[in-house]
Amino acid sequence: MLVLRKRLYDILEGQEHSLTANLVNGTIIGLILLNVLVVMLESVESLESRFGGWFYLVEIGSVVLFTIEYLVRLWVIVEDRQFAHPLTGRLRYMLTFRAVVDLLAVLPSYVGAFAEFDARLLRLLRLLRMLKLTRYSNSMDMLVSVFKREYAAILSATFVMIVIILFAASGIYYLERDIQPQHFGSIPQAIWWATVTLTTVGYGDVVPVTGLGKAFGLLITIAGVGMAALPAGILASGFTREIERRRELYELRARCAMEDGHLSLREARDLRKLGRQLGLDDVQTRLLLEKEKEELLRCPHCGGEVTTATLQKKPKGR
Amino acid sequence: MLVLRKRLYDILEGQEHSLTANLVNGTIIGLILLNVLVVMLESVESLESRFGGWFYLVEIGSVVLFTIEYLVRLWVIVEDRQFAHPLTGRLRYMLTFRAVVDLLAVLPSYVGAFAEFDARLLRLLRLLRMLKLTRYSNSMDMLVSVFKREYAAILSATFVMIVIILFAASGIYYLERDIQPQHFGSIPQAIWWATVTLTTVGYGDVVPVTGLGKAFGLLITIAGVGMAALPAGILASGFTREIERRRELYELRARCAMEDGHLSLREARDLRKLGRQLGLDDVQTRLLLEKEKEELLRCPHCGGEVTTATLQKKPKGR
Amino acid sequence: MLVLRKRLYDILEGQEHSLTANLVNGTIIGLILLNVLVVMLESVESLESRFGGWFYLVEIGSVVLFTIEYLVRLWVIVEDRQFAHPLTGRLRYMLTFRAVVDLLAVLPSYVGAFAEFDARLLRLLRLLRMLKLTRYSNSMDMLVSVFKREYAAILSATFVMIVIILFAASGIYYLERDIQPQHFGSIPQAIWWATVTLTTVGYGDVVPVTGLGKAFGLLITIAGVGMAALPAGILASGFTREIERRRELYELRARCAMEDGHLSLREARDLRKLGRQLGLDDVQTRLLLEKEKEELLRCPHCGGEVTTATLQKKPKGR
Amino acid sequence: MLVLRKRLYDILEGQEHSLTANLVNGTIIGLILLNVLVVMLESVESLESRFGGWFYLVEIGSVVLFTIEYLVRLWVIVEDRQFAHPLTGRLRYMLTFRAVVDLLAVLPSYVGAFAEFDARLLRLLRLLRMLKLTRYSNSMDMLVSVFKREYAAILSATFVMIVIILFAASGIYYLERDIQPQHFGSIPQAIWWATVTLTTVGYGDVVPVTGLGKAFGLLITIAGVGMAALPAGILASGFTREIERRRELYELRARCAMEDGHLSLREARDLRKLGRQLGLDDVQTRLLLEKEKEELLRCPHCGGEVTTATLQKKPKGR
Repeated sequence: MLVLRKRLYDILEGQEHSLTANLVNGTIIGLILLNVLVVMLESVESLESRFGGWFYLVEIGSVVLFTIEYLVRLWVIVEDRQFAHPLTGRLRYMLTFRAVVDLLAVLPSYVGAFAEFDARLLRLLRLLRMLKLTRYSNSMDMLVSVFKREYAAILSATFVMIVIILFAASGIYYLERDIQPQHFGSIPQAIWWATVTLTTVGYGDVVPVTGLGKAFGLLITIAGVGMAALPAGILASGFTREIERRRELYELRARCAMEDGHLSLREARDLRKLGRQLGLDDVQTRLLLEKEKEELLRCPHCGGEVTTATLQKKPKGR
Repeated sequence: MLVLRKRLYDILEGQEHSLTANLVNGTIIGLILLNVLVVMLESVESLESRFGGWFYLVEIGSVVLFTIEYLVRLWVIVEDRQFAHPLTGRLRYMLTFRAVVDLLAVLPSYVGAFAEFDARLLRLLRLLRMLKLTRYSNSMDMLVSVFKREYAAILSATFVMIVIILFAASGIYYLERDIQPQHFGSIPQAIWWATVTLTTVGYGDVVPVTGLGKAFGLLITIAGVGMAALPAGILASGFTREIERRRELYELRARCAMEDGHLSLREARDLRKLGRQLGLDDVQTRLLLEKEKEELLRCPHCGGEVTTATLQKKPKGR
Repeated sequence: MLVLRKRLYDILEGQEHSLTANLVNGTIIGLILLNVLVVMLESVESLESRFGGWFYLVEIGSVVLFTIEYLVRLWVIVEDRQFAHPLTGRLRYMLTFRAVVDLLAVLPSYVGAFAEFDARLLRLLRLLRMLKLTRYSNSMDMLVSVFKREYAAILSATFVMIVIILFAASGIYYLERDIQPQHFGSIPQAIWWATVTLTTVGYGDVVPVTGLGKAFGLLITIAGVGMAALPAGILASGFTREIERRRELYELRARCAMEDGHLSLREARDLRKLGRQLGLDDVQTRLLLEKEKEELLRCPHCGGEVTTATLQKKPKGR
Repeated sequence: MLVLRKRLYDILEGQEHSLTANLVNGTIIGLILLNVLVVMLESVESLESRFGGWFYLVEIGSVVLFTIEYLVRLWVIVEDRQFAHPLTGRLRYMLTFRAVVDLLAVLPSYVGAFAEFDARLLRLLRLLRMLKLTRYSNSMDMLVSVFKREYAAILSATFVMIVIILFAASGIYYLERDIQPQHFGSIPQAIWWATVTLTTVGYGDVVPVTGLGKAFGLLITIAGVGMAALPAGILASGFTREIERRRELYELRARCAMEDGHLSLREARDLRKLGRQLGLDDVQTRLLLEKEKEELLRCPHCGGEVTTATLQKKPKGR
């Protein structure tokens, strides 16, 4: 029993990379994608009326399988040293983001089966099953850690953006409320135009028509567009920096491991494991390792070794 | 009296972090947000006619409280060494950005009460109270310092953008003025299309219709879109670099403090204070401190200490 | 015969920079561009009816010439050490991206000539000949290597974007399906609005009209726009970093070559070759070389040599 | 005479910073801006009919003054060592970008006065006078040097974008030509939609209506938007890097000058001059100088001097 629990733990938590493990995890991922597809197709009336039975079948099957998955995970999680205690460990696990997502994937269906509930909303809640996929993505983990690092900057840029949107909305409300009361009759209404403009979406369903209104719109657009792009810019640049940071950490360890001139089997395995933890896939880690090796080659011109020491002589150079 | 003044100074200028201080500052922030909400809701006619009395009450109360806040700040500011002189110090404080914002938050209401004035504009001016929030945001301070560093580049990119907009407007005016005189009848009119296009807002209310006009529009769009995104790009990249710079400064101090192997209570308090000055919140500073500590750990492969000296051997690597 | 083969190999693979080589490669590039032009003009009915004969002539000629080019390349490729074996080498070459592109450039025309086939689609397939141009662009090669380095991040950002699009589509479907069944009648239909909005294209053909729908649209736009810009941001920043990386590698070699105080003819030729391999053109490499030389000049103030050692003293400085 | 020539040279080429020089250059800048304004206002019919006489007067005056300016510049340019030769030096100067711009500012007016010419086009050509402003902007110079450094990358990104636009246009032409022949009747027509979509302008005047067309549009938008933003991203990131590079160069010189512990008058003047050459304004250079000074302060924790040597110990840390 304990052997089975250990085996299941290794399979479900990605510690094992056998065919069985790939099959199990592949099935779960496939089932999640199938669920997303079914929710989308169900919303098309003609398909719902023809294949409604099949869709229902998929739903029933998914709830059963996801429930089993949830319970099995709860059973085997004590293999994790973090949640080792049979009772409190399991309780603490139930409060982690991943366990809550797993629960949310099935709970609405049970609520809907036993209580009166808005069927349409219930169906949409099944889209939350998409979040189960985050468990299988290393990069998602990276995105979360970027958010943690940069959230102060993103929040403050978002605040500036909201202030600009409110000013833009108030200004256009003041200038155009009498001409277009149906669009700019109140500030909340004008916010629609301001946001659509400053995010550069620009539907064109609401547009200033007076000369003053247009001039104000132009000024606020030229000045505000940069601000509106700020959160996106910070996020993108934070993301690339995070990747950089992880690559450098990996390189440091790789250099460490290769300093004696070769890479032992144990070192290689440790590096592969570190790469996985850092969210770097095998292609990237191989590229980084090769780069490290290259840097130990001799320079074709001066004949000296292009070691880190030579490289150090290089000025900042930017 | 002097003790009270010192206490009030500490509370209002964020030197104290007690429950009382949080309550006072929280009340001010809440009042500002309530004001923004009220100005927005007042502009909705149905709400104004039903809740107008309440809105008026909030306005009266806000003016009274913000006036008291302004006067108290003026009284206690001499505790600040920068503005220590009872008269000239207070006068100089009155000219700072923050004091002017505080004054602008109440002045229009007094003007409106004692003189004839456009009631609608007056109401909008109350939105300026939003600017009072900048006092409570460290990141806002950062944004200002980014602007100072990069304003030359942003200005010049904005100038290039305006030149391109004028060329685009003139070109389309030349090509389409006879076909669409209502939209491209003069260059100022054509500027509307040019700006809306080059900022990629693209309402679609004005669009070239001739073959030549469309071809010109495509060329100018492909060539100009990059230029139009320049100010935004410079701002975003300047912002992320500023955060980086501050983190590095913090790290430098943290390394300094930890070089003897441990972090004394006094050092920890100084670091926390520095972090606040730099606009880094507690989560970020804790992350940075942990990172510094990690870097003193031993390398799991070569067994040597991964100190700054080892790290130094690392080439630029990018 | 073998001499001719070697000569043709040098010409076609860019190893020779004589007038003949430039003529041959220029002809191929010109023919590709002519083909793109003809496909575009053919689609204009009035031009097709007038110049159809000429267009047909260009097509016949192009197929003949591109077929000859393909066969010649197949003949001479064994000069490349990578594909040296007469049979397996050629087979392996036929599976490279460039050989497949060359084959795709002519194959559809042969299929169309001998078998019944959609004439219109056939014509569009001729646009694939554009891909033959990638062979002549060093930067294209750089773009591919950026993709290789960053594909994990781009993929994961794209995944996040798709999740957000699906959530936005489901939400608006739930809120507006009864009001605008023609636009939001099913989730797949709503995806059109969600994608057009979150990529900030914003046609305006589909727009939420209820208050709740608009509010949801605003929230999802402000939150999602940053995410939608993520893949673009990662790609752009990866691209600039790749250029940086290659310049630094070039600089390192250049410093190496100049460390003895001068640049020999052989060193200069090797550097030029390296520059070409790295996708840096001659203007850029000359600029980099000049910069390296400058860094050996004396400082006008302190009188000391501004060598790499002095530069090293410089702190990170950011 | 020679003294006058030297004086005029100093004034016009920005070597002198007296009141006279500021007046002269301010007048020229003011005149350029006035010209832009007049060209724009002239295009408004109601203003042209009322103030046409004044506009004509400004035009005559501008042509006269700009002609004098051009001739004076031609006379004094031999003071520049680069163009010292009375004849060949002046001829070479006449071929520089700035001299050509100065000539283009007046030439069309003379052509229009003596020959028959499209009066409307002539008026637009007067907008070229805006380019005269580039002489007075240091940042414009920076923008040009960024272009030089990054033009290969920008060109190749633009090429990729054009390829994607052509593929998008061909695809939508194939899918929607029968449904919307007025918009997608030929590939050149479809290019309008493809460019407007991929640059995220999105007017909405042309939109796919079939399910297949919409699906194709979504795919191409999600995949292509990143590519379309590439040239802009490369330019923006190149621009910020160029500023960085110049600041570092300035810092290096400043450190050099301050290494002996103080900043002599002569050193300060040289630094100010260097700052101007690098396109950094006085605010920025002062900030950089202060930063350098700060870095010589003592660390408040360990008591040691925070010199460049201490800073060097800091690992890359990113």
